Amino acid sequence: MDWAKSFSMDAAAVRGSEIRELLKVLADPQILSFAGGIPDPALFPLEECTAIQSRLQQDEKAFRASFQYSQTEGYTPLRSWIADQAGGEASGIGTANTLVTNGAQQSLSLLAKALINPGDRLSVANPTYLGALQVFGSRRPDYLTVATDQNGLIPEAVEEAFKAGAKILYTIPDFQNPGGFTLSEERRHEILALAHEYSVIVIEDTAYSALYFDAPPPPSLFQLECQGDWGAEDRLVVQLGTFSKTLMPALRVGWTLAPVALIEKLVILKQADDLHTSTMNQIVGHELASTILAQHMSGLRHAYGQRRDAMMAALDQWMPDTVRYTRPGGGMFVWLELPEGLSGVELLKRALNEEKLAFVPGGAFHADGSGANTIRLCFSTCSAAQIDDGIRRLAGLIKAA
Amino acid sequence: MDWAKSFSMDAAAVRGSEIRELLKVLADPQILSFAGGIPDPALFPLEECTAIQSRLQQDEKAFRASFQYSQTEGYTPLRSWIADQAGGEASGIGTANTLVTNGAQQSLSLLAKALINPGDRLSVANPTYLGALQVFGSRRPDYLTVATDQNGLIPEAVEEAFKAGAKILYTIPDFQNPGGFTLSEERRHEILALAHEYSVIVIEDTAYSALYFDAPPPPSLFQLECQGDWGAEDRLVVQLGTFSKTLMPALRVGWTLAPVALIEKLVILKQADDLHTSTMNQIVGHELASTILAQHMSGLRHAYGQRRDAMMAALDQWMPDTVRYTRPGGGMFVWLELPEGLSGVELLKRALNEEKLAFVPGGAFHADGSGANTIRLCFSTCSAAQIDDGIRRLAGLIKAA
Repeated sequence: MDWAKSFSMDAAAVRGSEIRELLKVLADPQILSFAGGIPDPALFPLEECTAIQSRLQQDEKAFRASFQYSQTEGYTPLRSWIADQAGGEASGIGTANTLVTNGAQQSLSLLAKALINPGDRLSVANPTYLGALQVFGSRRPDYLTVATDQNGLIPEAVEEAFKAGAKILYTIPDFQNPGGFTLSEERRHEILALAHEYSVIVIEDTAYSALYFDAPPPPSLFQLECQGDWGAEDRLVVQLGTFSKTLMPALRVGWTLAPVALIEKLVILKQADDLHTSTMNQIVGHELASTILAQHMSGLRHAYGQRRDAMMAALDQWMPDTVRYTRPGGGMFVWLELPEGLSGVELLKRALNEEKLAFVPGGAFHADGSGANTIRLCFSTCSAAQIDDGIRRLAGLIKAA
Repeated sequence: MDWAKSFSMDAAAVRGSEIRELLKVLADPQILSFAGGIPDPALFPLEECTAIQSRLQQDEKAFRASFQYSQTEGYTPLRSWIADQAGGEASGIGTANTLVTNGAQQSLSLLAKALINPGDRLSVANPTYLGALQVFGSRRPDYLTVATDQNGLIPEAVEEAFKAGAKILYTIPDFQNPGGFTLSEERRHEILALAHEYSVIVIEDTAYSALYFDAPPPPSLFQLECQGDWGAEDRLVVQLGTFSKTLMPALRVGWTLAPVALIEKLVILKQADDLHTSTMNQIVGHELASTILAQHMSGLRHAYGQRRDAMMAALDQWMPDTVRYTRPGGGMFVWLELPEGLSGVELLKRALNEEKLAFVPGGAFHADGSGANTIRLCFSTCSAAQIDDGIRRLAGLIKAA
């Protein structure tokens, strides 16, 4: 049985990642990792989780229900919370505009299934989130990559992609993964106007938006559209959110905010995909979100902000002038452009071998195959001392190359 | 924005269910429901769950890890358990043959994505599980339906489908949903031989296999293939399992057992789909499975067996001779064939209106659009008294029609 011959065209289009193979060594605790893209488990709100679990255990009926099948759309109190934090009634947003998913990744995969035919044109930032390229890739689109700078997507490049027939723009406006940059408010207005001019669906991924260190990011594209002059029936911004970066990833709870006609289709697709998201995990997520989230986020901002500061200080101190990097106002990532000709993949191999140091080479974040001389550093799981030490050693490797 | 015009061909092929709309009234507690297809929450092992949660809470490192991102393949101890219960080393089955999913429904959706191109020929029983038809439908296959009788799939009809170019056979050999019938051991051997003769992939869904009331079902197709003369490289049976019917559905933990080459592709697709299944839920599922499952199943078999007995007794007592029904040896369902010309959908409308009684019309379980005069009754959530009362009233409606 030759399974490769049995794979569908969609499955054949999705390939394993060389990077993922390289990074399997991360299980080795001796390795200092800037690869991650994961939150620090030391910052998880465990006491509150324990309290929520205890309360549920004491309410037998609710406890039983938390393990039973539940509706595909999601746990109603959580859907209300999602609608409210997105503006609620004042913005014309209700529970009917929400769908709970197994994290923003499933939001993406349902949207990809709902909206993308093979050959459809899809505009994405260069660079952009690898997991989005993976799931979109399984729908076999044609990518139109959009250039970015320190202020995110460049509107002229966006318009070029829209003129070339883009059906969808996927974007992470705040503290982008992997770029670390944030789309300026002015550009948000421009891109929203362009999307309406060219009738392009905008998928806005807000995974990192609440994780700001200096000041909150500008209003989301979703918010700006709600506040704009377009009627509810003209809306074309779809927003994804998740508890993975604010609370805990393994809850696997995220959501999609969209016009009702799209949500209804996504619900049917989600039902076919996996019936519903774990009832218990939705309840825990909702309880945490509606009680401690604001206070918890203030702690996270402080902790991750200090790590961002440590990484910027170390980069400023140790990196040669030939390396350029972003200065993120939040999130988890700094993006480095190495001297032309220095390969991120080769640098990773040497960093693992010679320094037991890990990061993610940037090429895989580019839908057009460029970016060989870029790398992504994550500061979320390391102490200031580890960051200083690691960046010093990384800079040494770069200078030696 | 006309969203319907934006939907992909795959998404347009998946439609909402008329039945699902009708059954939204089930929220009304006054309705006596044989519709379900859900386990009885009164039988969930809550004490053991509480104990597992408490143990985890006391092991801070493990508790934190249970909320962190984890590997797509699944929690290793759970994968070992899955491999062992499928025969383990003696059958040539190891963790590399396993993938943990969000329930068997996600196993199906990943397999559909991995293996089905539009227009591929897919053989399914008539009737078969509605959720499978939904997820396969989103891949736009051509169905080759296979006739069934009290012993499940009819081998001659299977061979006809294989001759007509079937790429895949999907089957629930034990206590089938919705038919309630079990594939005889002789037929299992015949169908396995046919699959190898025609090189057809077999997807075997074992959701109900452990829920037997009289005697365990015959060995699974997966087991028979492992014990057969085929080499490991020739295996073409893929098996799905789940904790939804044995432990608790909202864990959303299921699995796929398959040759390594297929598992590797499924892992990549699952990573794109939703990264991984909730770590905590996998741990709870594994703890329950490796401690109390055997004893718990014996309790479930007793409780559901009594309800099956009550339903058979009520059907024998109240139903007119013009109604034919199956005698399930396990699972949750009895399948009724009404007199020709009596519509299951019309009967449901009247049952809801006149008797506040619910069940599922059988037409939707038929990929070929037949079965209008069939219905599915679920006995898993009702007491013997409710079953007797409900069947008496249902019989009254049928006689009056």
